[in-house]
Amino acid sequence: MSEVYAVRRTRLRECCNAGGSAAALVSRPANVRYLAGPAPEGAVLLLGRTDDVLVCPGTPDDRAPGTPGSRPDENLPVRLAPGANADPALTAAALAASQGADSLAVEEHHLTVSRHRAIRSAAPTLRLADIGGAVEQLRVVKDEEEISCLRIGAEIADQALGELLESILVGRTERHLALELERRLVDHGADGPAFPTSVGTGPNAGRRGHRPTDRRVEEGDFLSVCLGATYRGYRCAIGRTFVIGTAPADWQIELYDLVFAAQRAGRESLVPGAACRDVDHAARQVLDSAGYADALQPLTGHGVGLEIDEDPQLAPSAMGKLDACVPVTVEPGVHLPGRGGVRIDDTLVVRPEADGGPELLTITTKELLAL
Amino acid sequence: MSEVYAVRRTRLRECCNAGGSAAALVSRPANVRYLAGPAPEGAVLLLGRTDDVLVCPGTPDDRAPGTPGSRPDENLPVRLAPGANADPALTAAALAASQGADSLAVEEHHLTVSRHRAIRSAAPTLRLADIGGAVEQLRVVKDEEEISCLRIGAEIADQALGELLESILVGRTERHLALELERRLVDHGADGPAFPTSVGTGPNAGRRGHRPTDRRVEEGDFLSVCLGATYRGYRCAIGRTFVIGTAPADWQIELYDLVFAAQRAGRESLVPGAACRDVDHAARQVLDSAGYADALQPLTGHGVGLEIDEDPQLAPSAMGKLDACVPVTVEPGVHLPGRGGVRIDDTLVVRPEADGGPELLTITTKELLAL
Repeated sequence: MSEVYAVRRTRLRECCNAGGSAAALVSRPANVRYLAGPAPEGAVLLLGRTDDVLVCPGTPDDRAPGTPGSRPDENLPVRLAPGANADPALTAAALAASQGADSLAVEEHHLTVSRHRAIRSAAPTLRLADIGGAVEQLRVVKDEEEISCLRIGAEIADQALGELLESILVGRTERHLALELERRLVDHGADGPAFPTSVGTGPNAGRRGHRPTDRRVEEGDFLSVCLGATYRGYRCAIGRTFVIGTAPADWQIELYDLVFAAQRAGRESLVPGAACRDVDHAARQVLDSAGYADALQPLTGHGVGLEIDEDPQLAPSAMGKLDACVPVTVEPGVHLPGRGGVRIDDTLVVRPEADGGPELLTITTKELLAL
Repeated sequence: MSEVYAVRRTRLRECCNAGGSAAALVSRPANVRYLAGPAPEGAVLLLGRTDDVLVCPGTPDDRAPGTPGSRPDENLPVRLAPGANADPALTAAALAASQGADSLAVEEHHLTVSRHRAIRSAAPTLRLADIGGAVEQLRVVKDEEEISCLRIGAEIADQALGELLESILVGRTERHLALELERRLVDHGADGPAFPTSVGTGPNAGRRGHRPTDRRVEEGDFLSVCLGATYRGYRCAIGRTFVIGTAPADWQIELYDLVFAAQRAGRESLVPGAACRDVDHAARQVLDSAGYADALQPLTGHGVGLEIDEDPQLAPSAMGKLDACVPVTVEPGVHLPGRGGVRIDDTLVVRPEADGGPELLTITTKELLAL
């Protein structure tokens, strides 16, 4: 794995040098992990003029290590900040100056104003520049190792969801169902949930990001569930909607079929070279033309990886095109206030048609199940 | 409750006016909650020259509301940012300028450099100042309503821990025990865990912030558990260490007695007017004089409230004194690499001796239980 991190750092270095900075300080946790492997909380990476260094908080030895079984790139020198309350970013900046750099690119979208000022004081000879979203852009296209982590995470989420569907649901609360799903994710080998598990019943079903309440599942309800596993740091999402009871009502079948059609249209438009806004449009216009424009969300999907919500965004104003090997969610939904709604969410990887088209990672059935 | 929020805002306004700013923008989530009540994620508070306004993200109506059963101060006008991707802070800054303010105090320790720059562009006539930790300082001393939330949270954590102790522990993994504790917290009415539940067995026991692994509980192990409940936004902590099996070894009894003595010394020194560093010293010197100086943590306790780690810090270099009605943890510990260790953590409220001295919120026994 060490080589992978070194290659990534080289790419970032080229990017910084092109921007006129000899050194870069990476502080955003997912970016540090991408470039240095699993590192202790609060660690920062210095891409130095001569050497790269991982600077970790100066906590005592009995501090908990990172994710079990994982560690940072072993070829990367590690320094400790001088004390538990010292900011590793200041150590890194001083190190950059001592290596003879005259400018340092930092992540202005992650550093607070106070921290930026402290870095300036710690290394007054350095000109501070902005690295912008350079690391985030490198992270968009995944290698097969990364996709494999997402694939395993998706399998785990499928398993957890599948087991829940075999149990009795009526009478249980949204909160209990969500907790049980999260326990099952861990049972099946996830590091943990990829994001807070969402379970919505009845009028809450289909709400994006709904936080589970004490409402109990009742006969005739829509039940929507959205969960994901984190596996080796990589996060995926799956969302499904079910009907509770033997016979879905007509309005439920109609709404489900509509959202399903929208989600399929989005999935089918995932080809390398497609504009992100066109994928969004493909899903959105199905709902739009059925009169649900107002119920629509700001986006119908987004990238996933070390964070659950990464570039690219599938939204009306999104810029840019999809590349092969970019994993995204496709997750349109409709929620009718007071009645509930439907959300269907898959994680897929963009692949060329020659390779069989988009690779579906979350394979739980999307038939409307009556449970 | 509305009056409470209004009084808090008045105190902050006095603080800002004294600092020369007519208006303030509060963005740190716990600070927004303190001054405006439970608000949607991403909301910011403008303490304006003429009016106070809560500015929320412009998400569609079916966006999940805040914590169930709670809502922001109803006397506070609410504005929406113009779109789901628009930053409410920019709307708030423009509003401040339109009210005729010439300067705006912002939270430089929370705003990123990029966001600060965007605020400057959105309201170029405003001089941006730093409000510093003004809201955090207001939050240190709690009112009885806040303490009551902490007390209920502590009861919930005590219940969850008590139930776990009645079950069979040998053979179960740290991860499963942690998940079960979190489920029980929610069962008993918590909003959720106050922080990731820590369960450490054998060589992992006593590690501060240990993340649960797949190690199983064995006969003869130390088992240390640290958990907390969030109740109406308020977070408490309890930590206990147990021995698994019928007879603790001599070294286990000795180590336990030592940490217990240190923790008691810390608790007993919690009086209004005590210097924070003296409370730390009281606990620390017990371990120190027994030769465990190297194993010590940077702090032996900290404030709790809307966040799990607030001012004051109980640490050797801490400044300031304790006031009545300040809730703090007292949590010394010793961890011996390869062997495990002991940590004991309580949440208490500083009270004058006339009122009976420090109020212990977490009442689970601190006897060394052999389970």
